[in-house]
Amino acid sequence: MSYYKDYSKQQLETERNNLLKTYNELKKFNLSLDMTRGKPAPAQLDFSSDLFDHISDSGFKAQDGTDCRNYGVPTGLPEARKLFADILKTSADKIVIGNSSSLTLMFDTLMRAMVFGEHDSEKPWLNVEGRKWLCPAPGYDRHFRITEKLGFDLITIKMTESGPDMDQVEKLVANDPAILGMWCVPLYSNPDGIVYSEETCKRIASMKCAAKDFRVFWDNAYVVHHLYDDKQGSIPDILDLAEKEGNPSRFYEFASTSKVTFAGAGLSCMAANKENLDFALNYIKAQLICTDKVNQLAHSLYLRDGNGVKEQMKKHALLLRPKFSKVLEVLDRDLAPTGTAKWSHPLGGYFISVFVLPGTAAKTVSLCKELGVALTPAGATYPYGKDPEDSNIRLSPSYPDVDSLEKATEVFCLCAKLAAIEQLLA
Amino acid sequence: MSYYKDYSKQQLETERNNLLKTYNELKKFNLSLDMTRGKPAPAQLDFSSDLFDHISDSGFKAQDGTDCRNYGVPTGLPEARKLFADILKTSADKIVIGNSSSLTLMFDTLMRAMVFGEHDSEKPWLNVEGRKWLCPAPGYDRHFRITEKLGFDLITIKMTESGPDMDQVEKLVANDPAILGMWCVPLYSNPDGIVYSEETCKRIASMKCAAKDFRVFWDNAYVVHHLYDDKQGSIPDILDLAEKEGNPSRFYEFASTSKVTFAGAGLSCMAANKENLDFALNYIKAQLICTDKVNQLAHSLYLRDGNGVKEQMKKHALLLRPKFSKVLEVLDRDLAPTGTAKWSHPLGGYFISVFVLPGTAAKTVSLCKELGVALTPAGATYPYGKDPEDSNIRLSPSYPDVDSLEKATEVFCLCAKLAAIEQLLA
Repeated sequence: MSYYKDYSKQQLETERNNLLKTYNELKKFNLSLDMTRGKPAPAQLDFSSDLFDHISDSGFKAQDGTDCRNYGVPTGLPEARKLFADILKTSADKIVIGNSSSLTLMFDTLMRAMVFGEHDSEKPWLNVEGRKWLCPAPGYDRHFRITEKLGFDLITIKMTESGPDMDQVEKLVANDPAILGMWCVPLYSNPDGIVYSEETCKRIASMKCAAKDFRVFWDNAYVVHHLYDDKQGSIPDILDLAEKEGNPSRFYEFASTSKVTFAGAGLSCMAANKENLDFALNYIKAQLICTDKVNQLAHSLYLRDGNGVKEQMKKHALLLRPKFSKVLEVLDRDLAPTGTAKWSHPLGGYFISVFVLPGTAAKTVSLCKELGVALTPAGATYPYGKDPEDSNIRLSPSYPDVDSLEKATEVFCLCAKLAAIEQLLA
Repeated sequence: MSYYKDYSKQQLETERNNLLKTYNELKKFNLSLDMTRGKPAPAQLDFSSDLFDHISDSGFKAQDGTDCRNYGVPTGLPEARKLFADILKTSADKIVIGNSSSLTLMFDTLMRAMVFGEHDSEKPWLNVEGRKWLCPAPGYDRHFRITEKLGFDLITIKMTESGPDMDQVEKLVANDPAILGMWCVPLYSNPDGIVYSEETCKRIASMKCAAKDFRVFWDNAYVVHHLYDDKQGSIPDILDLAEKEGNPSRFYEFASTSKVTFAGAGLSCMAANKENLDFALNYIKAQLICTDKVNQLAHSLYLRDGNGVKEQMKKHALLLRPKFSKVLEVLDRDLAPTGTAKWSHPLGGYFISVFVLPGTAAKTVSLCKELGVALTPAGATYPYGKDPEDSNIRLSPSYPDVDSLEKATEVFCLCAKLAAIEQLLA
């Protein structure tokens, strides 16, 4: 057995013909499989289906007696803030509660900066000409889309095993005052599952920035989303680290219960130091009377505290592990022998990141589509949707059942191989 | 009996001494009464306390089969859009659903205009120097606060019995391209309870504006909030009217269930024509994955349709009517004879708007405060919190029980009279 790169032209052609035969047979099956988005499976959502069953028994009263059905408490219920403080290992006074999309808190925070600047800005970011934003990639397409819409030039930062390439980052931010910020998913990065090293976190917290109002959007989306009990990634409390490193206002941290309870009806939070939070709240208090306190109460009663969240996440892991294992097993079996691709082996998060032979990602995705297997569009994990290597494909194993995943991954491997051979023969 | 203005100096002094005696006696009672905000009373919130009791029986499935617990549907569930279409008498395709604060939809819509402009703008509103906003007053303090925060010069527009003084409005908007918009609460205006006449609505929809991207924020907050079955205000469907008058993009309309179900956990909506909605959704779809669909489902199942909303609002009216009546009764009994004040007799909404003797509103509020009766700060109903006449005070009868309201209104009348006499003697 040898890698494709060692095949003769004739061997490649034979292999291609065999693969094409399978491909054409599969067409008849009219498959309809979806590995596009990191959506929880219905069985995961079922864990929380009793979230509201006892809410009326509570009299809708928060711990301090607040009637959650009525107006007020724009920062969120104290117990909801405490819950997220447990999750993020910070203190409740650094937390403000949002509605169901943490993305909204990120978008709104950037919108405020566009209109008002940050507390340490010289002018609104809308009026910073040639404003730029650092995008470690592969990364989360919805992050990139926000900063693109807001008119930032997106600068791709290479990802390494320990997080963003900090040599590249430090050099850029030190010299260009138009670089105003950076996206980070520090634990189980989307899609690579990379855990930022302590060294990386420290360098981000301490680096010298030409823009004195430089901000890191620290999306701790997978902070409790471990796949295993014994092997778990961890990162430092970034707000604490930033304080120690003398850049206390550098970070906005975000999290949500989207993949803890309900993806379409959870809670989100933003954590920040006092200066950032006071500045934000000055506008948030004009923006709303309150976020949904009944949902905050329901979540607080249901999840209780950090330990309650841990228990809940163990249930999720129990369902997710076999799915990740199945995808990895098929990749190892069908794709590894060709030597054309590599992929992540994440300890948490929602994705497996595959790097197929450069130049073949888009082709692979389109071949899959023809067989009825939907994948995230090639390039989606890069700024502007353009992967310079045309290599990365994000697989999302959470939603389909194990059998469908097996079939979908087999199709994926077949298509990746076909695309690779065509490239090698071209 | 005669009005204060006809009293001799000596009669006024005698009256003052009598009032002061009562005032000092009341001090001993250590009252704690609150008529500050238009909050529903607990008994009103109780109507909806079973909102979530059967949500898990539904399997969390929307009518089209959507699993409301999962991601997706950024515009909101079709049945929730239909519900608000019923409420606003428009069509569901003109509606997008928000979370619990309609204020957030207004704030966000203005923030988008600040950063991106409107679809027919030449530039972002942040870069419109000397931008101005029309504020019919007395009006809603939280409206004024938003446009103030966003750096608009607030222009006070006089309110008449049929809505904003349209002669003043038309003249201003025709000549000043920096006037970008206007706040309106067209039905049961906050706080005066004024119903805009058809003529007024038509003039707003048809008037010539120097700013071609002029927008009216049509906050239909009290659209179903009638106090009586037989006497109800009504206004035309403003989106339809705007279309007919050739200014289809002039209006953003807002509504919520804050005072239908839960003030702290309801649904909100924005309605607009296709051009405005498409333009907004282009950014909203970057801002969020979805708003809270479980709450949307709960509301849709609970309220059902326009008729369900009507039934629910009759229950509210049944509780609110005696409260409004009691306040009006005490005002008629204690304050009318002095001839120093006038007040609204609203057919709906949440407020009674009192105009005390000019120059005495702040004094009245502070005298009340000393007796333990909290009122909305004098001036709050005007731009910048400054009532040029120092006359308007907004009473909110909804939250306290009838006995407390009677006591609070008696205190209010006493303080208004004391302040009036001091002014007349000065």
